[in-house]
Amino acid sequence: VAASIGDVAARAGVSVATVSRALRGLPNVAPSTRARVLEAAEALRYVADPHASRLAAGRTRTIGIVVPLFTQWYYTQVVSGAEAVVASAGYDVLLYCMGGDSGLARFLQTLPFRKRVDGLMLIDLPLADEQEAVLAGTSTPVVLVGVRSRRFPSVVVDNVGAAAQATQHLLNLGHEHVALIGHEPGSVVQSVAPIERQQGYRQALKAAGLPLLPEHDVPGGFSLQGGAEAMAQLLTVGTPPTAVFAESDEMAIGALKTLRDSGLRAPEDVSVIGFDDHDMAPFMGLTTIAQPVVALGEVAAQLLIDAGTAEPPGPTTVELATKLRVRTTTGPPRGRWDALH
Amino acid sequence: VAASIGDVAARAGVSVATVSRALRGLPNVAPSTRARVLEAAEALRYVADPHASRLAAGRTRTIGIVVPLFTQWYYTQVVSGAEAVVASAGYDVLLYCMGGDSGLARFLQTLPFRKRVDGLMLIDLPLADEQEAVLAGTSTPVVLVGVRSRRFPSVVVDNVGAAAQATQHLLNLGHEHVALIGHEPGSVVQSVAPIERQQGYRQALKAAGLPLLPEHDVPGGFSLQGGAEAMAQLLTVGTPPTAVFAESDEMAIGALKTLRDSGLRAPEDVSVIGFDDHDMAPFMGLTTIAQPVVALGEVAAQLLIDAGTAEPPGPTTVELATKLRVRTTTGPPRGRWDALH
Repeated sequence: VAASIGDVAARAGVSVATVSRALRGLPNVAPSTRARVLEAAEALRYVADPHASRLAAGRTRTIGIVVPLFTQWYYTQVVSGAEAVVASAGYDVLLYCMGGDSGLARFLQTLPFRKRVDGLMLIDLPLADEQEAVLAGTSTPVVLVGVRSRRFPSVVVDNVGAAAQATQHLLNLGHEHVALIGHEPGSVVQSVAPIERQQGYRQALKAAGLPLLPEHDVPGGFSLQGGAEAMAQLLTVGTPPTAVFAESDEMAIGALKTLRDSGLRAPEDVSVIGFDDHDMAPFMGLTTIAQPVVALGEVAAQLLIDAGTAEPPGPTTVELATKLRVRTTTGPPRGRWDALH
Repeated sequence: VAASIGDVAARAGVSVATVSRALRGLPNVAPSTRARVLEAAEALRYVADPHASRLAAGRTRTIGIVVPLFTQWYYTQVVSGAEAVVASAGYDVLLYCMGGDSGLARFLQTLPFRKRVDGLMLIDLPLADEQEAVLAGTSTPVVLVGVRSRRFPSVVVDNVGAAAQATQHLLNLGHEHVALIGHEPGSVVQSVAPIERQQGYRQALKAAGLPLLPEHDVPGGFSLQGGAEAMAQLLTVGTPPTAVFAESDEMAIGALKTLRDSGLRAPEDVSVIGFDDHDMAPFMGLTTIAQPVVALGEVAAQLLIDAGTAEPPGPTTVELATKLRVRTTTGPPRGRWDALH
């Protein structure tokens, strides 16, 4: 049996995406890592075989990936992980941007992908039962990222647990006034993550016997600017929070900007924790929940490529681990706000 | 004659991408802007018509976009601009990631897009004459972004002029020791931009009668980490620079991180200017050269969609304007380094 790219990754102790990047000579791979990958590939006599995929249909040699937006950091990372695995198997990627509220309905009506892809990956697009049925009817293998399903395999993180952990981190530091920067309910780009993260935040507060103040739950639109505005709003409420959990790092970085512009410091005046471990997070010293964005795409792509084997994978849900990364924007409450409380 | 999306954009005083986002109900459009767009669309009786495109061939209703990488900010922005225009014309986007040094050659050998797209946009992929001939032989309309061509229309910025302006900004503040954080020569992801920006930097120094010190020209790999390492290297040279021009904002932000970690301040100890106007730049107070990333994609997509009209557009080069944005990371030399010089 020929070695797979996964075997090389395991032997070199790196991700499949890193193996793919190293073997294709792409940048952002440290020379020592590249050497380790090449050694592993040689030891295993690994040869990248564009026809090695098991996706039986294989007529189009194309995988369709559907995202709500092209521009958000999270999507680019998931897609890059998926692309690496898909390219290693000799497939092209047809990337489709859902674009807006009516996008999913229109997509399912017109099925622009039909007959053009051998498999379909939907990122962060929750499906109603009848929508799943429409997709299943096309008999194109489907894998979901970020959304659980009773019909299709999916790759997710435990958003509820991770958000509860982020909130608990703040509570354990001694904060009693913890705010949430989250998502507009009913916003056009639907996703389960904001709802699940809000749930985790609420669970942790309730478990600690703390009240849920509506004025401490502010939407930030998952953007820098939205996070900045949400923090500004939190500074105007009756009981300003001493700590903030932002449901994305982009919003957390926006919140830090508002604090700085207001002459406040993190964590002295307000602690801030994010969610993602965005490339910029270490540069901000941002404490955050790291989620394995690239691996989400890699694993989903592998599930899709394996979908052509005899046994259909069925509604497997693969849950990847998140990790609390403590940096410098969280600490005990001790600033001017705390003295006011 | 029915109003085009461009007419709506002109009347509302916003970009085509904003009109597209507003009409599709996407986020990141201010409510007041959305209202203005809807007013303009109503006034002009604009109806988004998926069949309004003039791309005559129109068999596949798909535009292929080829990028060197999925993950870099610059590419995601150009692609999002292109996608908005392409979607408004009723086309899908087939996004192809070139992936590495042999990628372009392999792409031109196998032409995976042939018969699958009605038009092709190549972003930041310089072509040799014979490579252009291969593409022209497919009779698929081609538009280039970031690269000038004698055969295909292209959309570019004046990298030489903009880089000279960035350097001149530092010289005018009184700096005499200005370093460059740029690109590895011979790096696998080829692009003209790094070479042109280096040229602009050198022109400005020469015009000021200043020497070009090899130790002041350091590669930063167009990444955060690379920029951080390049700045660290610049702090070890015989004559440390009092000012740095980084050829991308991501590298500039990495450089700022190294300065902060070293107990140095920008601009007091070292001035830093970037290139891009990345989403994060305002949050860092980063002085930079803003380039119209979204518009690059929009204009290129429009050229491609117009390519089906009777008159072939020929090798038009559209040059979009850049703009110096002065924020807080540049100032006169006055810190501890300057005292040493």
